Formats: sequence, C-alpha cells, structure tokens
Amino acid sequence: MKVAVIGLGSMGYGMATSLLAAGHEVYGVDVNTAAMDRFRADGGAGGALRDTAPALDAVVVVVLNAAQTEAVLFGEAGIVSGLSKGAVVMACATVPPAFARDMEARCAEASVLYLDAPISGGSVKAAAGALSVMASGAPEAFEAAAGVLAACAETVFRLGDEAGPGSAMKAVNQLLAGVHIAAMAEAMTFGMTQGIAPEDFVKVIPQCAGTSWMLENRAPHIVAGDYSPHSAVDIWPKDLGIVLDIARGAKFGAPLTAAALQQFVAASGSGFGGEDDAAVAKVYARNAGLTLPGED
Amino acid sequence: MKVAVIGLGSMGYGMATSLLAAGHEVYGVDVNTAAMDRFRADGGAGGALRDTAPALDAVVVVVLNAAQTEAVLFGEAGIVSGLSKGAVVMACATVPPAFARDMEARCAEASVLYLDAPISGGSVKAAAGALSVMASGAPEAFEAAAGVLAACAETVFRLGDEAGPGSAMKAVNQLLAGVHIAAMAEAMTFGMTQGIAPEDFVKVIPQCAGTSWMLENRAPHIVAGDYSPHSAVDIWPKDLGIVLDIARGAKFGAPLTAAALQQFVAASGSGFGGEDDAAVAKVYARNAGLTLPGED
Repeated sequence: MKVAVIGLGSMGYGMATSLLAAGHEVYGVDVNTAAMDRFRADGGAGGALRDTAPALDAVVVVVLNAAQTEAVLFGEAGIVSGLSKGAVVMACATVPPAFARDMEARCAEASVLYLDAPISGGSVKAAAGALSVMASGAPEAFEAAAGVLAACAETVFRLGDEAGPGSAMKAVNQLLAGVHIAAMAEAMTFGMTQGIAPEDFVKVIPQCAGTSWMLENRAPHIVAGDYSPHSAVDIWPKDLGIVLDIARGAKFGAPLTAAALQQFVAASGSGFGGEDDAAVAKVYARNAGLTLPGED
Repeated sequence: MKVAVIGLGSMGYGMATSLLAAGHEVYGVDVNTAAMDRFRADGGAGGALRDTAPALDAVVVVVLNAAQTEAVLFGEAGIVSGLSKGAVVMACATVPPAFARDMEARCAEASVLYLDAPISGGSVKAAAGALSVMASGAPEAFEAAAGVLAACAETVFRLGDEAGPGSAMKAVNQLLAGVHIAAMAEAMTFGMTQGIAPEDFVKVIPQCAGTSWMLENRAPHIVAGDYSPHSAVDIWPKDLGIVLDIARGAKFGAPLTAAALQQFVAASGSGFGGEDDAAVAKVYARNAGLTLPGED
C-alpha cells in the first residue's frame, strides 16, 4: 500500500515506522523538519503530498485535535480533494463524535472512505505496531484500512458501522484515564500527609482494590521524581475539555471529570504543562506544603 | 489460640470461620442472633465474653467504625479491662489514624497489645482466609497476632512499628476505591449518552488505559442490573467522610474525593443506600434521563 501519515509526533512517528516495517510505501508529513529528516533516514518518503495524493490508498491523520484534523483534510492544502475514489482516511485524534460524523459525511462527498479510529497505548506501543484502536466506520472503510490496522494495531475494537462510536469510546476512556491520574496524585499526596511515603504507596496500593492502570503506570514517575513527558499534562485540559463539551451538549453532569480537569488546568497554569502528566501531583503537594521525591 | 471475633458481619463472619478452620477456639460476638446461631452451628462458641476474656489470646474487632470500636474495647461492657497482660487487640474497622494511635495508647495502659489492622478484599476473600491486611503496630503485637493473620490473610502489609500507618494506608485505598467506583459510573453513563452500550463499555475499557480494579469488579453489576450488595452504597459516605475529615485536619484539599462523596450521598439519599455501591450509577442515569440495564 501507499500510505501517508500526517503528523509525526510520538504516536504518528511510531505508526509510520510500523507501516514501513510492514513493507508499505509511507509518506510522512510534519512541520517539524527534524522529524521529517529522521523519517527519511528511517526509509520513509517526504515532500509535497499534492502530487502523490491520487496514488495513495490510505491517509492516517495523527494530529492534535479536531481543528488540525479538519485543516489537514479540508483546509487550504487539504488532502481529501486530491485523493482517488475509494481511498480511506483513518482519523486518530481524540475528537467529538459529532465531528467524526461530519468528517465522514464530507469525505463521502468526495467518494473517500473514513474510519473513525482514535488510538490508545502510548508511544512505546505505537513504535511496536501494538496500539489499541477504537474504530467505527463503514465495512468498506475497515476493508480499505485493513493493511494499516494490521501494521499498527495489536487490538482493534470494531464499534459500529459509522463514524462516532470510535470517538465516543475514546472519550469514555480519556474521562477515566484523566480522572485516574488525578486520583492517583490526590491519594498519594493525601497519604504523605498521614506519613505514608510515596514508595510505600506504590508497593502496597497496586496489590489492593484501589489500583488502576494509570496508577500503576504513572505513580512510579512521582517516586522517581522524573517528569520527562511520556504523556504531557497539557493533553488533559484538551481531552477532558472535549469530554465536558460533549457531556454538556448531552445535558450530562460529570462532576469527577470537572474536578480532575481543574487540577490539570492548575498544573498547566503553574508551568507544568509540558511535563509528564504525573506532575499534577505537584499541584496537590504545593497546596498542602508537601515536598515530593526529587524536589529540594 | 483462644480468639474472640467481635462483629459477625460479612467480613467478621468470614474471618471467624477462617479462624475455626485453622483449628482455633473462636468466640463470636454480634447483636444479630441469627448470625450467632449460624456461627454456633458452624462450630463456634458464643455467650458473654466477660468470663472468657482473661483466657483470650486475641480479640479481632470487625465493627463498622471508630465509635463502635471504642465501645467494644472501652465502653460499658468493654473487653480490654478483662483481658490478660499480653493479649492482642486486632482492630479491623476503617478509622482515622489518630484514633488508632489513641486506642493503642489506651490498650497499653491495660498492658494489652494493639494491632492497627484494617482489612481489604471483600466477603469472599474473608471467608477464604485470603484478606489483605494493612497492618502497623509493635513487633510484639504482630507476634501475638501471628496466628490470626495466618488464618485470615493472604497478604499482610507491615507498615510500621506503631498504630496509625495501617489506618492511613486503608484511608488512601478507600479514597481511590470510592473515586474509581464513581468514575466508572460517570464514564459508563456518559458513554450511554453517546451511544456506547454498557455491555460494550465492559468489553472494551478493561483492555484500555482507563481501567481500574473497581471498574472491572463493579461495572458488570450494572450491565447485569444486579444491585445485590457485595459492598453497599452506604459504606462510601462513611469511608470517604473519614478520608475528608482526616484531609481537612491536615489542610489537604481533595476535590475528586469530595466530588465522589457527593455522588454517594445522593445515591444514599435517593434510597439506594443498601444496594451494591455500583448503584451510584443510578444517580448519574436519573440526572441525564438514561435507562440502565434491568430498569423498566
């Protein structure tokens, strides 16, 4: 297959190299020239997509949000108008379900297939071709994207025959993941006020009913005092904001999500936006006069 | 050993029968005469403890809260004054760490050992002698309670040489467990507003980063429409209330815990207090006009 990957951030780059490893011809697109140089050195192709577009079988869009997705598909240099009939757009950003349905409809006007396909698993799994994909779309879209899914995904959840459910399930997952990170930070720092050391927290709680996937993944970062971003604080004001926008539209009250969002907003406003999202613990610690591991 | 178990609720009963199974002589105490009759039929002993107290090696207290713990230890018919020197009180209720330290000091005045030993694992693990115990206390208290721990626990976390850290870790675990149950309910019902069926939620999310131990344990109750209480809604206003009391005392703000507590209070106030704690989902569903599985 000829595949374009638009967005060579940590997730897109891993998907692009997974596609290369599977033997596909892969065109990378990113404003970051260092990422483009690295991708060419890894065996990928670059350059303007306008000439290549008619030959592409699939376009994987791994940008930050709905606005960027719309821009790369239908903006001034949007790719959809250049694609051939039957090509598939696989859209991986976390977006509102209604936006995904709109993109599907607009692609259909250009006889282009659309797979609503948010991804989960982090950059390590992206590089290993082992992502989870929460996908929905027409059977033809799944068929057209089969080679991409085979190269990039360990698990494909097939959630429906039209765009929307994929993005909805991703929003559900992000609600939980964001709340669980903030809850982990709240619990660990609360424990510190009662004399529970962070290293005892990570020894005991993963074996108890209070554990979560995010706790087991992120709590060790705080114990190590290492906030190198695997996934940054600034993801969460965006993703939990999407959740709350969708929720408000459905007249659904989400008080835990709202509380978690405020903690991530405070973390971002305090200058920790580019750090690992475990840094939300710094907000709790500062408010309670606590010193986290690795701090002076 | 001669052991008294005070409180034959679902947890205490399982611990008492585990002690019987391990060959100990066990005296049960509960105001519930049906539980007492059943315990005698299972091979346990009953009757007034005043006569037996001097011969007891250990007293396991598995009551609801701090007030009940204090009453059975030091109230009008309190047992501590009747115990022999070197007997151990193993206190299993979820209580504030400061209360545990106070109980330890008052037991010491009577030359009685005290183990701060909150339990986790639920009634099934209690009956199997497979609980987790978050324990702290003097080495002599651990030694005196060794037979009880061996009979009742699969995992003993030894958290310190005095009362307090055991109860603190239990509070940390309850913070997380309560928040995670409410978050599960929030996410599942939010998903329903976006067309995600509860049965798809439980198929997909346990395989994703948004999962938690509580989600995997409780979400199936909602899918089944079965709110038979494994652990009741009314546990959470109590336990999260303890967490927030301790937190306020430490000038620690816990916004997610506070939000979760309000949802459980609303569930209790709506008449669901005696149902399984997954029934907190009913508050979310009613507020959003959703119909949960099993409802008309």
